[in-house]
Amino acid sequence: MYDPALHIVLYQPEIPYNAGAVGRTCVAVGAKLWLVRPLGFRIDNRYMRRAGLDYWPHLVWEVADHWDALLQRLPDRRPWFFSKSAETRYTDVEFQRGDVLVFGSESAGLPRTMVEGYPDRALRIPIRPETRSLNLSVSVGIIAFEARRQWEAKEKQEP
Amino acid sequence: MYDPALHIVLYQPEIPYNAGAVGRTCVAVGAKLWLVRPLGFRIDNRYMRRAGLDYWPHLVWEVADHWDALLQRLPDRRPWFFSKSAETRYTDVEFQRGDVLVFGSESAGLPRTMVEGYPDRALRIPIRPETRSLNLSVSVGIIAFEARRQWEAKEKQEP
Repeated sequence: MYDPALHIVLYQPEIPYNAGAVGRTCVAVGAKLWLVRPLGFRIDNRYMRRAGLDYWPHLVWEVADHWDALLQRLPDRRPWFFSKSAETRYTDVEFQRGDVLVFGSESAGLPRTMVEGYPDRALRIPIRPETRSLNLSVSVGIIAFEARRQWEAKEKQEP
Repeated sequence: MYDPALHIVLYQPEIPYNAGAVGRTCVAVGAKLWLVRPLGFRIDNRYMRRAGLDYWPHLVWEVADHWDALLQRLPDRRPWFFSKSAETRYTDVEFQRGDVLVFGSESAGLPRTMVEGYPDRALRIPIRPETRSLNLSVSVGIIAFEARRQWEAKEKQEP
């Protein structure tokens, strides 16, 4: 049975090039990509495919019509939410294989109600105040590879 | 005097949207961006600016005509080179404030001669074989934030 290393969720993404770059990151780390509607582009958008023509056949992905539909597809898992308004830094928690990482849209981020509904699960990437946020695909890459770094370091300690 | 936390070098970058996203990462971590010619786009390209309109005034950046010109501008520093052909993983070295991180072009990566010229300084980001590489701006984000994570963990230990 296919068991993804991570579940990476893009909530209402707007820019196809970013979704393509995130898909490439998913293939690189063995993650499954989830896209929560509405999307700002068609799945077959040429910019999305251009960002990853060579990896696309290897990408495992699914579209959910809305947030509750996604939760039903991933029961018994606690998602991590990434938001600039969160207090906890992503470097202060332990990620595990199979974790669900949820990222908001490029312009609006995640809805406040979603982040406030899981206060212990909201994380931020610390950045200098001169910029509002990182590029979406960059944020996903930082978190996915920090998760990988953590579990590889742990598995090295426990042979 | 302005002393960048990191120097991030894009060697002959081709895609303006990626350079824009890298610029945004530079502002977020306090890095200086270096672009080594030839570039695949004009510096004022609208896609580059669109990727970062809100941060652009805060970005410290410089263009070098070629690699040797860059080295002259950053003497007494040992660069790290990122290449999929390197043997050492990026998680197995210690980054320091002021390090120079050099990334190749989207299609060709770094020239083999450059990577082989500094065998102890070549690093790779481990990825599954199903994809050839990560998106350029994603690679830069992973490394810049790993460097930041390392020095913050170190500074926490040495108060």
